[in-house]
Amino acid sequence: MAGEDGVKTFGWAARDTSGILSPFEFTRRATGAKDVRFKVLFCGICHTDLGAARGDLGLPIYPLVPGHEIVGFVTEIGKQVTRFKVGDKVGVGCFVGSCRSCEQCSNDLEPYCPKNIMTYLSIGEDGAPTHGGYSNEMVVDEHFAIRWPENLPLDGGAPLLCAGSSVYSPMMYYGLNKPGSHLGVVGLGGLGHVAVKFAKAWGLTVTVISTSARKEEEAINHLGADKFLVSTDPQQMQEATGTLDGIIDTVSAFHPVMPLFGLLKTHGKLVVVGAPNKPLEVDILPLIIGRKMMGSSAAAGIKETQEMIDFAAKHNITADVEVIPANYVNKAMERLEKGDVRYRFVIDIGNTLVAAPST
Amino acid sequence: MAGEDGVKTFGWAARDTSGILSPFEFTRRATGAKDVRFKVLFCGICHTDLGAARGDLGLPIYPLVPGHEIVGFVTEIGKQVTRFKVGDKVGVGCFVGSCRSCEQCSNDLEPYCPKNIMTYLSIGEDGAPTHGGYSNEMVVDEHFAIRWPENLPLDGGAPLLCAGSSVYSPMMYYGLNKPGSHLGVVGLGGLGHVAVKFAKAWGLTVTVISTSARKEEEAINHLGADKFLVSTDPQQMQEATGTLDGIIDTVSAFHPVMPLFGLLKTHGKLVVVGAPNKPLEVDILPLIIGRKMMGSSAAAGIKETQEMIDFAAKHNITADVEVIPANYVNKAMERLEKGDVRYRFVIDIGNTLVAAPST
Repeated sequence: MAGEDGVKTFGWAARDTSGILSPFEFTRRATGAKDVRFKVLFCGICHTDLGAARGDLGLPIYPLVPGHEIVGFVTEIGKQVTRFKVGDKVGVGCFVGSCRSCEQCSNDLEPYCPKNIMTYLSIGEDGAPTHGGYSNEMVVDEHFAIRWPENLPLDGGAPLLCAGSSVYSPMMYYGLNKPGSHLGVVGLGGLGHVAVKFAKAWGLTVTVISTSARKEEEAINHLGADKFLVSTDPQQMQEATGTLDGIIDTVSAFHPVMPLFGLLKTHGKLVVVGAPNKPLEVDILPLIIGRKMMGSSAAAGIKETQEMIDFAAKHNITADVEVIPANYVNKAMERLEKGDVRYRFVIDIGNTLVAAPST
Repeated sequence: MAGEDGVKTFGWAARDTSGILSPFEFTRRATGAKDVRFKVLFCGICHTDLGAARGDLGLPIYPLVPGHEIVGFVTEIGKQVTRFKVGDKVGVGCFVGSCRSCEQCSNDLEPYCPKNIMTYLSIGEDGAPTHGGYSNEMVVDEHFAIRWPENLPLDGGAPLLCAGSSVYSPMMYYGLNKPGSHLGVVGLGGLGHVAVKFAKAWGLTVTVISTSARKEEEAINHLGADKFLVSTDPQQMQEATGTLDGIIDTVSAFHPVMPLFGLLKTHGKLVVVGAPNKPLEVDILPLIIGRKMMGSSAAAGIKETQEMIDFAAKHNITADVEVIPANYVNKAMERLEKGDVRYRFVIDIGNTLVAAPST
């Protein structure tokens, strides 16, 4: 501890729009009455981390420590903390604060609170920039901490806190979780592969839709999808016309969506959770004729994140991860950009993050 | 009657892609066991009539008699007809047939039946092209006939059968009918002005959004809207950010929709019922952040159309119409194309349609 002003912490931070990360020492607030402080054991590397580090999401206040798929164990609790005790396993996702009183907060929808505080890229209540989980420890209001089920692996479970939450929440909200219905999953990356697992756990028939035919074996034999469609094959797409009740589209690059609408049954829903950097083009006539819709969603609120994590534990759902040491993070970012990971890098913070030599 | 083969009928038909209408004599089927035959009294002129006459919706089989906002009185009923008797007032909208057995038909969603038969532009069960209400009489299976409430005017009520149905159904489906909520109506034409009236009857706050500032007085003082926004005024739009629960967008021309998404609250819904001839451009990020969606819908099924007509009668809702004689129809089409009608032309078929001199 470093007295009332804060606690010395270390991690890896981006310093400029190169996005290159390097060791960084900073302080986190002392443990407040409602805070849990925890040692970080694992942190997933999300696409958002890469974009944020490079300033693609708006120029951040550098240095910036990314990471919002964080798990660890509690080392200290504030006097008013009721849900955690020292030693508990704990998770933190995309948000570490919100107003707690608006309509959204009242409905457990913290991601939509206009005053929400993101795990990184925000200004915290103490006026300092927030820093994420590429660091040795975290401190958060217990409201924003997820209780970690005993049987859920920490490394494979960490990515559920963003990637999992980002597909689970829209699938729940838009009703793409109905047993017996037929779901399409577009894109087999960090989000898509977890969407397949949730959908199979709910008892859905799942078709993976990808530009890459070589993912078929993986999708069906490894992830348990029922069918596979190559989106660039007009005949396959034609034959699948009108077969899907819903689609969750996890692709972040610009791509044509009208062929996806064509796969939907009447009243079908296309839920787009990637954020392409140019507008998607939507013909309305097919939406009229088939009463179809397109929606989106942010990650889950805290209550729903807890439900998702508990659901994952019950159904043995984890992300497929490649665990890396902290000093591999820049190489991991390079590979992530090329899609060269199956399906999520997770940093082994607990065993490999060391304080910078200068400290 | 003209024997078993059909009944001589006359009307106005388009002959080619000029869309120009001229008197036309044809036959309709004899009254079948489940059919009601009725004399047409009024028929609204829908934008679709204009496009269809010109072949914009795919080249029709000419001659083509448009019209799918049709009211009249029953002149003959088939032996198995149970819901109508001779003399009853009756309405027919966009559809005159469907398979009656598929999932959509079983759920009273005939517009989504893959085998539905449109009032015009389709091939009827007898193998002949269907013809609409710009004609002296119609014959339809009673299932597709709407019982007309005694107190609902025939001329002002006729346009409800398409224009009314095309806003009522999506507003119901997407939940834009909740008392106390705040609805935006984009475009003040045939559909938009009726949407305002339904919304006020449901107890909503209504903001009309238009490119044309000169419509403000009309929207507020005549139609009863609560607020008016000029969509091309950045300051007005900015001030209204995040104020609407839903928007029904009735504009058929291409237009930017992201400013409309900006007007929506979190979880807001943009329902687009016009069909612009080029794709709308949708940035996903604002939809993620606000969990917003965009949907569409065809016109109501028969059961819902009846409910809509009964609702309109109860709340004294009619379209604002300009009643014209049959021989004004080409001029009316010209004016319609320029938006020079407040808000719907209705042809006084009963009093002004006469058989062509040559017949």
